[in-house]
Amino acid sequence: MNRVAVLGGGGMGTAMAMVFARSASDVRLWVREPDRARAMADSRCNARHLPEVRIPDDIAITGDAAEALRDAELILASIPTSYLRDGLSALAAVVPPGVPALSVVKGIEFGTFARPSRIIVETLGPRETAVLTGPSHAEELARGLPASLVVAGSSQPLCEAVQAAFSHKTFRIYRNADAIGVEVAGALKNILGIAAGVCDGLEVGDNAKAALLTRGLVEIARMGVALGGRVETFYGLAGVGDVVTTCYSPFGRNREVGLRIGRGESLPTILAEMANVSEGVPTIRSVHALAGRMGVDMPITHELHQVLFEGKSPRAAVVDLMTRTPKDESEL
Amino acid sequence: MNRVAVLGGGGMGTAMAMVFARSASDVRLWVREPDRARAMADSRCNARHLPEVRIPDDIAITGDAAEALRDAELILASIPTSYLRDGLSALAAVVPPGVPALSVVKGIEFGTFARPSRIIVETLGPRETAVLTGPSHAEELARGLPASLVVAGSSQPLCEAVQAAFSHKTFRIYRNADAIGVEVAGALKNILGIAAGVCDGLEVGDNAKAALLTRGLVEIARMGVALGGRVETFYGLAGVGDVVTTCYSPFGRNREVGLRIGRGESLPTILAEMANVSEGVPTIRSVHALAGRMGVDMPITHELHQVLFEGKSPRAAVVDLMTRTPKDESEL
Repeated sequence: MNRVAVLGGGGMGTAMAMVFARSASDVRLWVREPDRARAMADSRCNARHLPEVRIPDDIAITGDAAEALRDAELILASIPTSYLRDGLSALAAVVPPGVPALSVVKGIEFGTFARPSRIIVETLGPRETAVLTGPSHAEELARGLPASLVVAGSSQPLCEAVQAAFSHKTFRIYRNADAIGVEVAGALKNILGIAAGVCDGLEVGDNAKAALLTRGLVEIARMGVALGGRVETFYGLAGVGDVVTTCYSPFGRNREVGLRIGRGESLPTILAEMANVSEGVPTIRSVHALAGRMGVDMPITHELHQVLFEGKSPRAAVVDLMTRTPKDESEL
Repeated sequence: MNRVAVLGGGGMGTAMAMVFARSASDVRLWVREPDRARAMADSRCNARHLPEVRIPDDIAITGDAAEALRDAELILASIPTSYLRDGLSALAAVVPPGVPALSVVKGIEFGTFARPSRIIVETLGPRETAVLTGPSHAEELARGLPASLVVAGSSQPLCEAVQAAFSHKTFRIYRNADAIGVEVAGALKNILGIAAGVCDGLEVGDNAKAALLTRGLVEIARMGVALGGRVETFYGLAGVGDVVTTCYSPFGRNREVGLRIGRGESLPTILAEMANVSEGVPTIRSVHALAGRMGVDMPITHELHQVLFEGKSPRAAVVDLMTRTPKDESEL
């Protein structure tokens, strides 16, 4: 796996290109907008998403997808869920058949409820897929700080190959056999990132925030199990590990959306002002619809949907969550 | 349960007296040092532990244990584990027989490996006991911010009575049937608080800290199960809920110990300068010995023991934890 094509010039795509270039000799980063691709190639900087990081010279940066994908042995997809189907469809003609794909996309498609790995196969044709997820803020990855992630997918040999090829002193990769659970956990944790931000914006305190996250983990695990995942996965790196980073790190963009909501700003204003895409907002929309259809009880997701899309005040939502009749913890 | 005797004038004892006084008409707070008891009664302030909070006038504060305990219907124990056996033994003569006891103590006794609830029965005589634990920083409880806790114990009727008597709009109490797991989780989470502080002191980043906590949860749950608890308990309020507060809140005293260790200070210096007792330091000593005796694999506890008591550098410990061969996540 020496030739890697990274699709997507956001913060995560750029950071992953840098991490993978420590192990692979030929890493090419495809950036959709040609102007941005040229600027990044010239300046060796992703000014919009990672302004303080220098991109090493051995990473090729291009706006030409065919060039990025030529002879690739692994495709790494790093495109927000909402744009993933259209984005990949536009590239399908130049994507080599059969080359395995690794996804770092964290979401659930609205309407189809498809996981990113399924969108990859549906747009690019049949191939082995895996997802790489866990606590992994792009800024820290790009700075070379240590991280531990988990890989899971349709093919155990692909997971083993990814683990063998890209493990590094400061980049640990665990395998997990629960492909569904790992991918769903990565998507659903962004819901809790927004919930945590709302708590911070309302200044309800660390005790209440921790209680909400604990119940949130139970809630997303319940959905994960309903979709075919294993509950243990939600208490591993893809679940609790990613949840705590998302909910407590100052870098978290989903937490930032929640924070500003909690302080009284409106969602359209917040989204218009953010350089990065918040995966959590469309995920809440998708998962709220999915939970309704499947009959899965997700009270935090339900309250967030009311706050984001139905005009409910964030304080009323937190009060409603905190005043449900407490019973036995197993009924959380 | 209208008459409650709170034993222990630290931050948690004071905060719990305030929380319980919202529901009970006669709450008495016993403070060991007579001078401090008088000063607190006069100033209505716990200057050492909660300097910014006013203690309501309806809470009796006394240095006379017999006065605090007279006609009590519930005893609430809030004395650090290291002092619990001697402290309660000294009071045994004035403790009414048979009155149920609720513990908010979070530790494991060194040498005996006894949980606080057992120490209570051994020193005060047979009685029903329960523990109340979960994400509950004293400062926030005293300020009236919302919190959700869990009660578990030897008697289900006692747990139900505590839940019924002291639940409040901003103080939610869940029951959990796993008395062992709830009490052990409350003790072991302090180990992870110190580990989190070390990560912060070394500035290894949020990704690495989250990975360490995820693996730490697996490790403390493993010990909890070996002691007879249920793994689910460690993913509830007493486990992950309390862990995240302990590891991320700026109030956490165990996190503060780790932070200063990570920055290169020595343990004796840190402990000499702290107004509050860190339960995590003696807990690491106890649990390290217990893990050795029981053959339970606890790599993070082991490394912390080496750092705190055997002179290992914190950075070397983190590197050793981060460079273990990664395999399948279930082998974490």
